[in-house]
Amino acid sequence: MIIQLEPKLNDSTKTDVLQAIKKIGYKPSPVNTQFGNYVVCIGKKDFDIRAIGSLPGVRDIHYVSDDYQLVSRKWKVERTAIDLGDGVKIGNGAFQIMAGPCSIESEAQVESIVQHLKRCGVRVMRGGVFKPRSSPYSFRGMGLDGLKMFSAVCRANGIKLITEVMELAQIEPMYDYIDVYQVGARNSQNFNLLDELGKVDKPVMIKRGISGTIEELLYSAEYVFSAGNERLMLCERGIRTYERASRNTFDINAIPILRDKTHLPVIVDPSHAIGIREFVAPVALAGVAAGADGIIIEIHETPEEAASDGAQTLNYEESALLFKQIRAILDVQQA
Amino acid sequence: MIIQLEPKLNDSTKTDVLQAIKKIGYKPSPVNTQFGNYVVCIGKKDFDIRAIGSLPGVRDIHYVSDDYQLVSRKWKVERTAIDLGDGVKIGNGAFQIMAGPCSIESEAQVESIVQHLKRCGVRVMRGGVFKPRSSPYSFRGMGLDGLKMFSAVCRANGIKLITEVMELAQIEPMYDYIDVYQVGARNSQNFNLLDELGKVDKPVMIKRGISGTIEELLYSAEYVFSAGNERLMLCERGIRTYERASRNTFDINAIPILRDKTHLPVIVDPSHAIGIREFVAPVALAGVAAGADGIIIEIHETPEEAASDGAQTLNYEESALLFKQIRAILDVQQA
Amino acid sequence: MIIQLEPKLNDSTKTDVLQAIKKIGYKPSPVNTQFGNYVVCIGKKDFDIRAIGSLPGVRDIHYVSDDYQLVSRKWKVERTAIDLGDGVKIGNGAFQIMAGPCSIESEAQVESIVQHLKRCGVRVMRGGVFKPRSSPYSFRGMGLDGLKMFSAVCRANGIKLITEVMELAQIEPMYDYIDVYQVGARNSQNFNLLDELGKVDKPVMIKRGISGTIEELLYSAEYVFSAGNERLMLCERGIRTYERASRNTFDINAIPILRDKTHLPVIVDPSHAIGIREFVAPVALAGVAAGADGIIIEIHETPEEAASDGAQTLNYEESALLFKQIRAILDVQQA
Amino acid sequence: MIIQLEPKLNDSTKTDVLQAIKKIGYKPSPVNTQFGNYVVCIGKKDFDIRAIGSLPGVRDIHYVSDDYQLVSRKWKVERTAIDLGDGVKIGNGAFQIMAGPCSIESEAQVESIVQHLKRCGVRVMRGGVFKPRSSPYSFRGMGLDGLKMFSAVCRANGIKLITEVMELAQIEPMYDYIDVYQVGARNSQNFNLLDELGKVDKPVMIKRGISGTIEELLYSAEYVFSAGNERLMLCERGIRTYERASRNTFDINAIPILRDKTHLPVIVDPSHAIGIREFVAPVALAGVAAGADGIIIEIHETPEEAASDGAQTLNYEESALLFKQIRAILDVQQA
Repeated sequence: MIIQLEPKLNDSTKTDVLQAIKKIGYKPSPVNTQFGNYVVCIGKKDFDIRAIGSLPGVRDIHYVSDDYQLVSRKWKVERTAIDLGDGVKIGNGAFQIMAGPCSIESEAQVESIVQHLKRCGVRVMRGGVFKPRSSPYSFRGMGLDGLKMFSAVCRANGIKLITEVMELAQIEPMYDYIDVYQVGARNSQNFNLLDELGKVDKPVMIKRGISGTIEELLYSAEYVFSAGNERLMLCERGIRTYERASRNTFDINAIPILRDKTHLPVIVDPSHAIGIREFVAPVALAGVAAGADGIIIEIHETPEEAASDGAQTLNYEESALLFKQIRAILDVQQA
Repeated sequence: MIIQLEPKLNDSTKTDVLQAIKKIGYKPSPVNTQFGNYVVCIGKKDFDIRAIGSLPGVRDIHYVSDDYQLVSRKWKVERTAIDLGDGVKIGNGAFQIMAGPCSIESEAQVESIVQHLKRCGVRVMRGGVFKPRSSPYSFRGMGLDGLKMFSAVCRANGIKLITEVMELAQIEPMYDYIDVYQVGARNSQNFNLLDELGKVDKPVMIKRGISGTIEELLYSAEYVFSAGNERLMLCERGIRTYERASRNTFDINAIPILRDKTHLPVIVDPSHAIGIREFVAPVALAGVAAGADGIIIEIHETPEEAASDGAQTLNYEESALLFKQIRAILDVQQA
Repeated sequence: MIIQLEPKLNDSTKTDVLQAIKKIGYKPSPVNTQFGNYVVCIGKKDFDIRAIGSLPGVRDIHYVSDDYQLVSRKWKVERTAIDLGDGVKIGNGAFQIMAGPCSIESEAQVESIVQHLKRCGVRVMRGGVFKPRSSPYSFRGMGLDGLKMFSAVCRANGIKLITEVMELAQIEPMYDYIDVYQVGARNSQNFNLLDELGKVDKPVMIKRGISGTIEELLYSAEYVFSAGNERLMLCERGIRTYERASRNTFDINAIPILRDKTHLPVIVDPSHAIGIREFVAPVALAGVAAGADGIIIEIHETPEEAASDGAQTLNYEESALLFKQIRAILDVQQA
Repeated sequence: MIIQLEPKLNDSTKTDVLQAIKKIGYKPSPVNTQFGNYVVCIGKKDFDIRAIGSLPGVRDIHYVSDDYQLVSRKWKVERTAIDLGDGVKIGNGAFQIMAGPCSIESEAQVESIVQHLKRCGVRVMRGGVFKPRSSPYSFRGMGLDGLKMFSAVCRANGIKLITEVMELAQIEPMYDYIDVYQVGARNSQNFNLLDELGKVDKPVMIKRGISGTIEELLYSAEYVFSAGNERLMLCERGIRTYERASRNTFDINAIPILRDKTHLPVIVDPSHAIGIREFVAPVALAGVAAGADGIIIEIHETPEEAASDGAQTLNYEESALLFKQIRAILDVQQA
């Protein structure tokens, strides 16, 4: 159950509401975000909803049968749009392409990709500076200095950027240089990290765990939201199954299911979803046709020479063609 | 390695070819289909290809590095089209919608759906008369009598029909009443059934096993082809994974991968792939966008009353809308 | 709900019982096996159990909440033992080792293994003559002639034999030469085959499907039982998962779970469960420690030269040691 | 390739070794642990091993074909034993039982369990104070104050303790109060956490990821080892599969495979592996029979009232019986 409070509330009114909730046998968790003040109430008892609804300070009450609450569309039917500024929005009808290399490698690389994105009308660049790697001996990214350079080039060109945060201690130093924090698949249930990202007023995109369920992804989002940050997106990037013909199995079913269960935007990552360059395009188009709110995709001037993930990365020509095909399908959907 | 023989060959010439193959250390399997005579040669030794290529009766030799051979696109690059007659083709640019109920229930039901299909311009009806069911106490279908009725209604209306065959002994009695034999997911590796379907000159659609690999599906097709039947289609219908939010996980990756590996048409079954009525349409559109050659989908006048699979079945209004959306995406792809 | 009928019943008494069941809104399925006459009643309505229990001809009524019925331990608490004759029993405290090659290759091979089994005190030999193979070009077994030879050697030495049946048409010709029909993993849901095996009075061992659930395995057993054959065993042989370090993932959990849910004996197949020769022994011992009623294991005089599955096959020395270790754990369990 | 250096080495000698490694085209990573100084060299070129082996300061060179290196048994054949002090060792023949509640709840609870463990001769207690929970609204553990109490009771009774660390910032405050840091399944690839645990001289037990591969678990261990901490154990706790009859699927195959691939001790967690109280014992015994070096198991005086995981927790009577059965199997193995 979610209680929406009036925007400005004095402490004693708020205390009265919390007391009333406890009295009916529910456990209240106050949540204050950029956009509102809520109390999430966990419990199962029957009670007279008017006893709470008529209290001073209570604007609205919603009963949510799911265990996750604030991210549920049973509470908030209207779809959320994430506004990155300068007219770049994601969700609720606004589709965004986010493209870039797996790893940021050099200023020349970033400059080249930024120019390609501008030519293609793409507004958001992806690129990793902190790289989670299975082996401790692999390249782990350019780190914060790489991010500063990446950010400077993007800002000089009006391009927004999304990059992965791996650790609590990185959140604050990254803050000034990014537009969206990405939580990677391996950190999808790093609850301390999620809690901390809830305290920051910057958009967060959470990738589904390597074998995470759709429900777990929603719970992970609930962590961030309930800690105070409503500016959230979810990303389907393929799951681990027995099939070995592709890197992951793209769970395309997750797109309509997530869009039914949550008001948050749903992004697809076709690069990781299949992991094979020549098949990224059909899989990307499938994601768009299934109703995704955006796409995040790996591109590189010369994929063969990429520092990581080259085997699933498109070059400029391939990506330019794909962007056109994506827009053609979006046109059909909106017709 | 596949050796294509001249169409009409006397026995001694053929024997000479087989001897020559054995001599270079390969195991020859002669294959005679509706369309050609081949020898599939299994082995790993190096040899001078001219020693075989120059033999009388040999038209062509293809080296195929995959373990499956005749279904491989490394041998036959041009895509196969299956011709059901009366202008109904599947594959190589021809897209077909196959729609109908999970189970054939009555003549009135078949008549009603056939009229709906005609209104929508759909040329192929699906419907089960032999039903594989987990529990022995469930409804197992109307059987051969049901098929005869189903067939009579379809033929009177110019509609082709596809239905599942579960058992060797059913192949012959079904022959006169069907246009495509469907091999169900649970029989995807019923090798005796596949062998026997190779001896019949009717198209066969093989569904991927419940947790079958893409490679196993290709091998199953190789069984039918190598037993003599080239008129084959493959069907992706979702695989079993840990995710419980949908009935199966639709492996959309399989579509571009199969289309790369084999010349056979690739069909998608969105009904089983997600198993939830309100999400069948986005998943179907994803399949089309990913490049499928056809779609097989469960529809019913009143899904709530269907004898089986009602929870994943579209009604007439929903299906008519979906067919339009499918055609819109096909138009974009061909533009 | 299972109604156990009196052993000898005239038709009109039986008809009266069936009528009474329909009257209370249940669907009756009469089942006649080697050992009893039952009516399985499927339905959900409430009724006065005495209305049925007091009818002439009714010996007993059991309510079974599972969807499978006759194989459930909620009905038959006492564990079933399968008697192969000559003192060879499986289940209800009697543990059996079944060992032999993947494929029967020659009379010399069978003779050698039979002697090894006799030296080790093993009473049952396994060996395939009809082999399901992914590729149509692989060796598919020695067939019925091989079985006749295999059977003759076993019978001359007091050894029982178990072998796979792949097809309805094989059941009758195999009947005189075998002691247990094995249903392979790929045929675990071949319902026509299961139905037909229900009509034969010989023990049947059903392997779990390659990615079959525990519940599906119980349903497959219900097919055989409800068609008339109570002499049934189940076999856990590993399931397909994402893990690639072993051939399959041995679901050891299935052993206590199956033993809780069904009265039928539960066998483990460590050879397929891990698929790596040097690790077969620890996995076999784990199966015994978890409570299995028997083990089926691949052995060969020279595994390196086996016609199939050599990589997971033990030689005589390895298997003799394992049999000793198994018996040591059985001794601890019975202490 | 692993180069073991002499224990005390001046900087210039070390620099010379690193230079020589770079010269042959390998990338050297110096590793200094509690027990030794190594250089891990990543590369693929051929070179004359004597060119490195004869350098001053080089004690030994081992070629390791796996991608993980320091945890590989190809380098260190002898099994590692972890010494917790006071005669409590794990690995290389020393088997340990670790038992306790999912969550630490109160001093009375800890006191009661400690007394039970002492009566049973168990030397290590488990218990969570930082709890990873899917939902942000669930109980997240007693935190550091709970740990201090837990630790005080254990130390007063000569019991060692293992508890989960979720976050880098927790490592240092926990240090004085624990004997083993546990890395939970959801943090199995939290590389920053693993790196940091490599800098601490306390044993670490890493649980396999919820759907982690065996190889990924070894890489995670390589992170800790290569950051400086050799005192490591691995834990198999069941993986996520399609099967819903148990909480997880216990990958018993992982035990012999891990023991073949690594010299580190391998622990089994039967409680999470099956998740059903009445079946924990057979699964635990299976783990012991398969060769595990230890077991970690959830027990509680009254599992029905446990703050978390009650459904998979044994009571005192059940656990005392299980401990006896475990020791009986250990006796057989050592006979």
